[in-house]
Amino acid sequence: MASIRDVAKLAGVSPATVSRVMNGTANVTEEKREKVLRAISETDFVPNEVARTLFKKSSKTIGFIIPSIQNPYFTQMADVIDRAAKELGFRILLCNVEHDLDRERSAIQMLISANADGIIASNNSELQHELSQCEIPVVILDSLFRTKDVNAYIYCNYYQGGMMAAEHLHKCGCRKIVCIKGPQQLFTAQARYQGYVDFCEDNGIEQHSIECDYDFHAGMAVTEELLSSYPDVDGIIACNDIVAISIYKILHKRNISVPEQIQLIGFDDVHLSSLISPELTTIHQPIEEMGRKAISIICDPEGLEKRGKQFVFPVHLIERETTCMKKLL
Amino acid sequence: MASIRDVAKLAGVSPATVSRVMNGTANVTEEKREKVLRAISETDFVPNEVARTLFKKSSKTIGFIIPSIQNPYFTQMADVIDRAAKELGFRILLCNVEHDLDRERSAIQMLISANADGIIASNNSELQHELSQCEIPVVILDSLFRTKDVNAYIYCNYYQGGMMAAEHLHKCGCRKIVCIKGPQQLFTAQARYQGYVDFCEDNGIEQHSIECDYDFHAGMAVTEELLSSYPDVDGIIACNDIVAISIYKILHKRNISVPEQIQLIGFDDVHLSSLISPELTTIHQPIEEMGRKAISIICDPEGLEKRGKQFVFPVHLIERETTCMKKLL
Repeated sequence: MASIRDVAKLAGVSPATVSRVMNGTANVTEEKREKVLRAISETDFVPNEVARTLFKKSSKTIGFIIPSIQNPYFTQMADVIDRAAKELGFRILLCNVEHDLDRERSAIQMLISANADGIIASNNSELQHELSQCEIPVVILDSLFRTKDVNAYIYCNYYQGGMMAAEHLHKCGCRKIVCIKGPQQLFTAQARYQGYVDFCEDNGIEQHSIECDYDFHAGMAVTEELLSSYPDVDGIIACNDIVAISIYKILHKRNISVPEQIQLIGFDDVHLSSLISPELTTIHQPIEEMGRKAISIICDPEGLEKRGKQFVFPVHLIERETTCMKKLL
Repeated sequence: MASIRDVAKLAGVSPATVSRVMNGTANVTEEKREKVLRAISETDFVPNEVARTLFKKSSKTIGFIIPSIQNPYFTQMADVIDRAAKELGFRILLCNVEHDLDRERSAIQMLISANADGIIASNNSELQHELSQCEIPVVILDSLFRTKDVNAYIYCNYYQGGMMAAEHLHKCGCRKIVCIKGPQQLFTAQARYQGYVDFCEDNGIEQHSIECDYDFHAGMAVTEELLSSYPDVDGIIACNDIVAISIYKILHKRNISVPEQIQLIGFDDVHLSSLISPELTTIHQPIEEMGRKAISIICDPEGLEKRGKQFVFPVHLIERETTCMKKLL
């Protein structure tokens, strides 16, 4: 994307002159003015950036880049963010990128050129450079970059969640616990899995795991694989609720009863986890509080500092119908 | 939103002069130029509209206004639209409006000022005036306005779907069918309900109905009401799949077996309907084809004509596990 400096270079003037032409505030010769306008046209200096420099008005718009709109965790987060933004007079632009780096990069550029007041992004540390270079506030959900040059990080204690899930299944009497870990390039998935690993090590329990994407197609395929590899499994930790629901589906089809034969625990506590039957035992993330915090950071003028402050939210276990403490007795 | 005419009026010049100042193409006196720039600053003539007039470049962006991001029908549609747009080099901006007219109005304005190449909207005929006035292509999903001044309408034969649902339950041996009809101000809900009504009239069947919003909270509340009002119900038509899932939840809690005691049919055939157990019998909408058609209309230069052409897609019944033809035997 061309910058004001590129335009200046092409026009053979200083960036300050480009700025004066765009602001129309000081004397610029007609010749220079025409050169600048021509250079703006010839570069891919995006129109809205012209406008932005021209007026510096807030667009009262915040962009939320959604890793996948098919994941109810993100649509629930989008709903919270939407409501919180509306209360403060802002609106939300959603960009669904389906874990595609090009789409995410294009979304960032578009939000900047649409003069957004801030960006909430999630998951993709590969774009940390682009996001840290943004001049507008950036809040990262569910991830942690090596660079601290964004405004804030908001995530949960996923490590603790992974431990809790393993501990709960162990307490429920499971002796062969398999962890379906999420994509290990993602912070959320790494931390959950590490919690499981450490609980097993601390308690002398054998570790078994299979990697799986955060979606239901992957969840169903992985469950078939799991049942072949571990025919004696009696506890499954799913990387998220939607994967847990797809695991349940396969178990139900095979007439394996839950929780009597295999106990099952999800992660996220999306609405759906209590809407299905049986209701899913899961690790609750405070989606409402996390989304509201993201908005408050962007809308608060103090939030503009690029300190990379971390807001870590606690998780907790919600016992429902797919696990069963009775086995202990 | 201020227009170029408002700016011209305030500056005391003609719209053509405003245009010349913005284009920088012809001679305008310095005095007039300053007046115009001041007027642009003083009105709420949005910066990006200035930019738009200035360069008239395509932003390669299409806006999709989502009635509710909590409804999986719309997130699935968003996913299709996203993929189809990407194949043609466009990107999608999503605006979730949660059935709120102000938010929808604001989304329309924002998409115009962000220089979108088109808008796909759904459901809200109250904004038909705003949408017909848009200078960019507009495609309406799942609705039909009185005015024909948009580019196209894309919807399914919902009426036929309502008939099919009633006919199927009747064939499955249900004698007391209750229709949980969607919000009757919506085209989709009206047409489905009318299909049910006409099937009942044609076949001398008693009609019973309760109105319900298209979401799971409403679905659960309405099911409690339904079971009190119609203790002998043996067939339920849900207004959509998510409501069908919430109906199943209440029936399951009350130990009412599906389909043995009550048969249940949904509408939409979202992914979730085959992911839950038991899998939901439902009326399939061709979401993939509908979404692709919307994008092809906006991206096709021929699509610019404002003819209000209607594309009506067929629906069909998907028999799964919540209804049971065996009762016939």
